[in-house]
Amino acid sequence: MNEILLMLPGPTTADPRVLQAMSKAVVNHRGDEFGEIYTETTKLMSKTFQTKNDSYILTGSGTSAMEAAVSNLVNRGDKILNVVGGKFGERFADISKMHGIESVQLDVEWGTAVTPDLVEEALEKDEDIKAITMVHNETSTGVAAPIKEVGEVMKNHDALFIVDTVSSLGGDYVDVDKYHIDACVTGSQKCLAAPPGLAAITFNDDAWAACEKVEDNNYYLNMPKYRANGNKDPAQTPYTPSVSLIYALKAALEVLHEEGLENRIERHHTAAAASRDAVKALGLELFPDEAVSSATVTAVKMPEGANDDQIRGTMLNKYKVQLAGGQDHLKGNIFRIGHMGVINYQELAITFTALGLTLKGLGLVEDAGAGVAALANHYIKFKLLEKV
Amino acid sequence: MNEILLMLPGPTTADPRVLQAMSKAVVNHRGDEFGEIYTETTKLMSKTFQTKNDSYILTGSGTSAMEAAVSNLVNRGDKILNVVGGKFGERFADISKMHGIESVQLDVEWGTAVTPDLVEEALEKDEDIKAITMVHNETSTGVAAPIKEVGEVMKNHDALFIVDTVSSLGGDYVDVDKYHIDACVTGSQKCLAAPPGLAAITFNDDAWAACEKVEDNNYYLNMPKYRANGNKDPAQTPYTPSVSLIYALKAALEVLHEEGLENRIERHHTAAAASRDAVKALGLELFPDEAVSSATVTAVKMPEGANDDQIRGTMLNKYKVQLAGGQDHLKGNIFRIGHMGVINYQELAITFTALGLTLKGLGLVEDAGAGVAALANHYIKFKLLEKV
Repeated sequence: MNEILLMLPGPTTADPRVLQAMSKAVVNHRGDEFGEIYTETTKLMSKTFQTKNDSYILTGSGTSAMEAAVSNLVNRGDKILNVVGGKFGERFADISKMHGIESVQLDVEWGTAVTPDLVEEALEKDEDIKAITMVHNETSTGVAAPIKEVGEVMKNHDALFIVDTVSSLGGDYVDVDKYHIDACVTGSQKCLAAPPGLAAITFNDDAWAACEKVEDNNYYLNMPKYRANGNKDPAQTPYTPSVSLIYALKAALEVLHEEGLENRIERHHTAAAASRDAVKALGLELFPDEAVSSATVTAVKMPEGANDDQIRGTMLNKYKVQLAGGQDHLKGNIFRIGHMGVINYQELAITFTALGLTLKGLGLVEDAGAGVAALANHYIKFKLLEKV
Repeated sequence: MNEILLMLPGPTTADPRVLQAMSKAVVNHRGDEFGEIYTETTKLMSKTFQTKNDSYILTGSGTSAMEAAVSNLVNRGDKILNVVGGKFGERFADISKMHGIESVQLDVEWGTAVTPDLVEEALEKDEDIKAITMVHNETSTGVAAPIKEVGEVMKNHDALFIVDTVSSLGGDYVDVDKYHIDACVTGSQKCLAAPPGLAAITFNDDAWAACEKVEDNNYYLNMPKYRANGNKDPAQTPYTPSVSLIYALKAALEVLHEEGLENRIERHHTAAAASRDAVKALGLELFPDEAVSSATVTAVKMPEGANDDQIRGTMLNKYKVQLAGGQDHLKGNIFRIGHMGVINYQELAITFTALGLTLKGLGLVEDAGAGVAALANHYIKFKLLEKV
């Protein structure tokens, strides 16, 4: 209990089994033993993405997989629709532009979510759009976008549906096949609760067909090379992979599926709903519209009369709980509580106790225990404690 | 001793301290604690590169750093001189072409090294060449290229000198500043003896000046973003780094500098010379010209009357020693013994004992102990045992 409790939207605390897996000796990544481990890990990834497609593991951050999706699926000079409602939506637009792709930006106010109607309208306005990018869980604002409903729109359009589930997969509902997602990417260090350093990506047949028509412009992130090497026997990655982290990711996915994907997602939704109750009970305001609030990160407006250092600094230095700040223009205006991966009521109880004490110390709340009490009552109300 | 001994040109066996470092809990990569670890690791990298330049750590394989160097330093449509004498030389040419750079290829026969004169001639023939790529240690052929001597040529030319030291840094002489290298890249899993998954890169002022004139065409491998984030306080990477592997790399570099860079390089050269003696004593032929033979990997011609499975298969299955095969057109024609990182006389004694027994079993050698005897005599002759 003397370690700092990370309540961040990634990296998240890894299970000891996962950290332990990494200290196994490194094997030859061109041999049978690694081939089997890699194959099992990619199969567990496909199971987690809920897809019959093959998955691939990149040695890189979630951003590397975002770039792999965009740059392998859309040609220089072609048009892409980038939905932007936060920092990671912007990143997709920046990646597109850097690859000479014409970015048509569909902006939504930070803290709100795009609607299926807005997407449909944008697609109908411009038939040249080859693909659309969406961030499922916009970590920067704490908003979950309606990817299932947008998927219903996408199934009637030829444009590819590229979705970033970096901070949602394993913590919120992502069903790649049912949601008509053509390319889906994620990262190791968020809800999957493995250490940072790996990303995963899956393409369906439509995506691979598009990929064949796109001029290669990336070497390290070249998806046809990942596919060709994945099909070798033993299965390989095109370039030396992070062997130790693949051990860790495999262990993390095993832990995840022992809990059960559905149970885990419910646990995240409960943690999010309980956190929202706790935030409100402390007299604080949620940053996003509550209806589109994320299952994995809760973004809170900085209260009047306090600054980032007083809230997050006190939480970290006095109470050893690390929260995330706002990014870009939200810096100092919000703070964010990540409840991803292995996080459960215990960590949230510590967090909201510390937040109550911090606010009380600043004279901003009367009852220091109001937040954690609301949290407890939420867990009682939903009778979910017996499951955890 | 029941584990398979990896005698590969990467990944290499990591020191237990290095594997242990990875099981430390992951910290926030935007915080002070990580900033310090990252800064110390990049400083140790610069010390290892022997440069006053800053270094950067990429979460990716050595190939990612090769692509970062080429794509950040040469514009689409400009000319690059790619020296090609093996698979990794070819890779630089492939990367260049994939980025729309005009590749002028300076081919040397596989198993031989380029000469400073050939480089000078190629540069003088075409004044439009903006950069040259060279692989210091061509892992695929076991050849070490004369980067020091080519550096003497490069100092009189404006073209940038880009050098891949993926499988040489920490095992052979690489002095970035003295050799007039403008951009140097390496990987974690070769002579540095950390697990695979990280690469390092350093640019000098000329490289940064060129970088400013090159149009951004890479997002994940965008070097100006690495520089801008490295200059933040605390120092950061632009995208989520592989925190656990950075712990491991830092530990590996500490182990390296405790041994001393010069001592370590001498140890590698001794291992290589002793291995060459042992190979010849077993009646086998070296693949490369001996004068340019690598300090970190020994490539051996497949003896008449034996195939890859009989040699490497027996070594692996019967004697638990893993050697590397040939790549591309050398597949089945050579095998390769890596002696990188922590490898010392002990591992070589096992390896050449096993190789002698394998050859004897195939009826290809009379004296099964001739190789390991020659190895021992080399170590005695150079009185290096007391140092190890």
